[in-house]
Amino acid sequence: MTTEKKIFKKIAQSKKARAGVITTAHGEIETPIFMPVGTRASVKTMWQEELEEMNAQIILGNTYHLYLRPGHELIEKVGAGLHGFMKWDRAILTDSGGYQVFSLSSMNKVTEEGVTFQSHLDGSRHLISPEKSMEIQRALGSDIVMNFDECPALPATKDRLRESMELTLRWAKRCRDYQLKDHQNLFGIIQGGLHHDLRTECMERLKEMNFEGFALGGLSVGEKNEEMVSFLDNFVHTMPEDKPRYLMGVGKPLDILNGIRAGIDMFDCVLPTRNARNGQFLTKGGPLNIKKERFKEDLLPPDPECNCKVCRKYSRAYIRHLFTVGEYLAGNMITYHNLYFYLQMTRDAREAIKADKFDEFYSSFYNSYTSNMWN
Amino acid sequence: MTTEKKIFKKIAQSKKARAGVITTAHGEIETPIFMPVGTRASVKTMWQEELEEMNAQIILGNTYHLYLRPGHELIEKVGAGLHGFMKWDRAILTDSGGYQVFSLSSMNKVTEEGVTFQSHLDGSRHLISPEKSMEIQRALGSDIVMNFDECPALPATKDRLRESMELTLRWAKRCRDYQLKDHQNLFGIIQGGLHHDLRTECMERLKEMNFEGFALGGLSVGEKNEEMVSFLDNFVHTMPEDKPRYLMGVGKPLDILNGIRAGIDMFDCVLPTRNARNGQFLTKGGPLNIKKERFKEDLLPPDPECNCKVCRKYSRAYIRHLFTVGEYLAGNMITYHNLYFYLQMTRDAREAIKADKFDEFYSSFYNSYTSNMWN
Ligand SMILES: [Zn+2]
Ligand SMILES: [Zn+2]
Repeated sequence: MTTEKKIFKKIAQSKKARAGVITTAHGEIETPIFMPVGTRASVKTMWQEELEEMNAQIILGNTYHLYLRPGHELIEKVGAGLHGFMKWDRAILTDSGGYQVFSLSSMNKVTEEGVTFQSHLDGSRHLISPEKSMEIQRALGSDIVMNFDECPALPATKDRLRESMELTLRWAKRCRDYQLKDHQNLFGIIQGGLHHDLRTECMERLKEMNFEGFALGGLSVGEKNEEMVSFLDNFVHTMPEDKPRYLMGVGKPLDILNGIRAGIDMFDCVLPTRNARNGQFLTKGGPLNIKKERFKEDLLPPDPECNCKVCRKYSRAYIRHLFTVGEYLAGNMITYHNLYFYLQMTRDAREAIKADKFDEFYSSFYNSYTSNMWN
Repeated sequence: MTTEKKIFKKIAQSKKARAGVITTAHGEIETPIFMPVGTRASVKTMWQEELEEMNAQIILGNTYHLYLRPGHELIEKVGAGLHGFMKWDRAILTDSGGYQVFSLSSMNKVTEEGVTFQSHLDGSRHLISPEKSMEIQRALGSDIVMNFDECPALPATKDRLRESMELTLRWAKRCRDYQLKDHQNLFGIIQGGLHHDLRTECMERLKEMNFEGFALGGLSVGEKNEEMVSFLDNFVHTMPEDKPRYLMGVGKPLDILNGIRAGIDMFDCVLPTRNARNGQFLTKGGPLNIKKERFKEDLLPPDPECNCKVCRKYSRAYIRHLFTVGEYLAGNMITYHNLYFYLQMTRDAREAIKADKFDEFYSSFYNSYTSNMWN
């Protein structure tokens, strides 16, 4: 059994919302934090210098994608891990590969041993087991490693969810028993759908394995938004106080706001990078689609309340032109602003928590965002 | 007749190669200079901040593209011209639209009045006359405006070239008579194929119209490279000493080297930005195609002799991975390096000219580049 490490320190609380610091070998992470997604060793369109400039403190890498291309051995060989390979000195979290194996690959088959699947790229056959996931993440050298869990097809009966949870727990044990690098921290993933009792049982049994942090998986996967919010409100505050809490793959700005209110510390989502493709800026006043005719001669910046390098300088009219004619710079600008927006949102939330004024922040952000003033 | 303005000052010469300064309302341009091409109000993938960071002093905008989208009236209305629209405070040169009208549009028809054509985007019909080209470039507010010339289909007989030259001269007069903004400078375009006598006649007749600079059009359009080099060597030094000399749309690094040797001051070419699409870095040691298997584990920067932000930090192995999986950052990096390479090349040439050592620079660059060491 690996010795438990304490990597989280809570520094303030405002109702259930909390602010803290996660310490890693690649710097401290001030929570609540948003983690930009760098699927294939790059956060879409962004230079690492730009992520530093907007003070991203941790980014995400995808085990499944990096395993297939360029391969974890190559990354370890030429970069001594992902940090050296992509020249990112700050913290990195890698997922387990599980989610992509179930969602992207074809012909996946689950056994006690692990999951066999065919690559979505070339149809080649692979097995990812808990040990294989740990081997890959060890080679990637990420600061936070996620355990390998099963993601059952949804909707699922409670029996099916329990069965899946039991397998996930056996796999979690095998992950915990795997020897990672000294600087790496392993997070356990709590499953159980919207069933409070299953989630609690899963968490209690994971706690015995001394993970350095806990994640909530299997949310924002088709359930009603109120159901997720209500689950988070009731469950998150029961999670260990002294460990980071990570809500995986969620979500929209208001989801993050609700997650913080419930006591979540860490978030990731592809939304701010993916939305660049359809021209959507996320702003204090709600989403703004730059394609709209009404912005054709608009000299305002995308978000008048934002201080990012896009909003300090460029007009909607210019960015709309770039987007319309298909210039890459439009995508760069939308992605940059959206990531900045998420990071600034979590920074603002942190300040509000430290001042014990999270409720005020919540109302103010919620009212402004839902005013939807650019529609 | 517009009063002639002197915008060029020669500061050094080394054999026929020369270094100088062009003064515009948007800063000084140290020649010889390479001008990145910003076709649609954006140099592909580059932030304006990045162009400043690599000390680009002038960029190019395309009249044809900007006329069609977003339209010169919009650019004048919301940005008071291209500088304000795209937030670029340094110098801008716009072409006349002629080249694109002849190469991109369909059904173009030349009359004394101008060229009627169908948009390559939607088939809509337009007329660009000398006056229309001036009206558009006036609205764009570029610092250097190009006169509207006919680009005859090639190969062409000498009679056809003469006929085209006569039309171009009549159009040049109409351009010269058009009232541009006070800060704008108009360049005349010398045509005449590889016929020294036609070129000379064209130049002499353009000189009477007091253009602020002269450009060579219709080169690198299918003739043998030696023919172009030989023409430049024989012709450029006969162009006015006290005015900028611009070789339009040429070319490869060695073309630029030969152009500088012949006495050219200004260059533009889409090569450094276009090559990003096929993975080609242009380096001191010749072209390097990052797709090659041999770079898979290569920890060297793209160009070990380059000091750009790509080469100071990132490895071939990493960029090859990004390119292979289709990450945008690969294109950003290749474009950034290639533009930096062209700008550094012209900066180095300028220093060599100032030290009266251009021949040594020429040999050294030529030998290194043609060693083709990355093939
Ligand atoms: Zn912004
Ligand atoms: Zn470079």
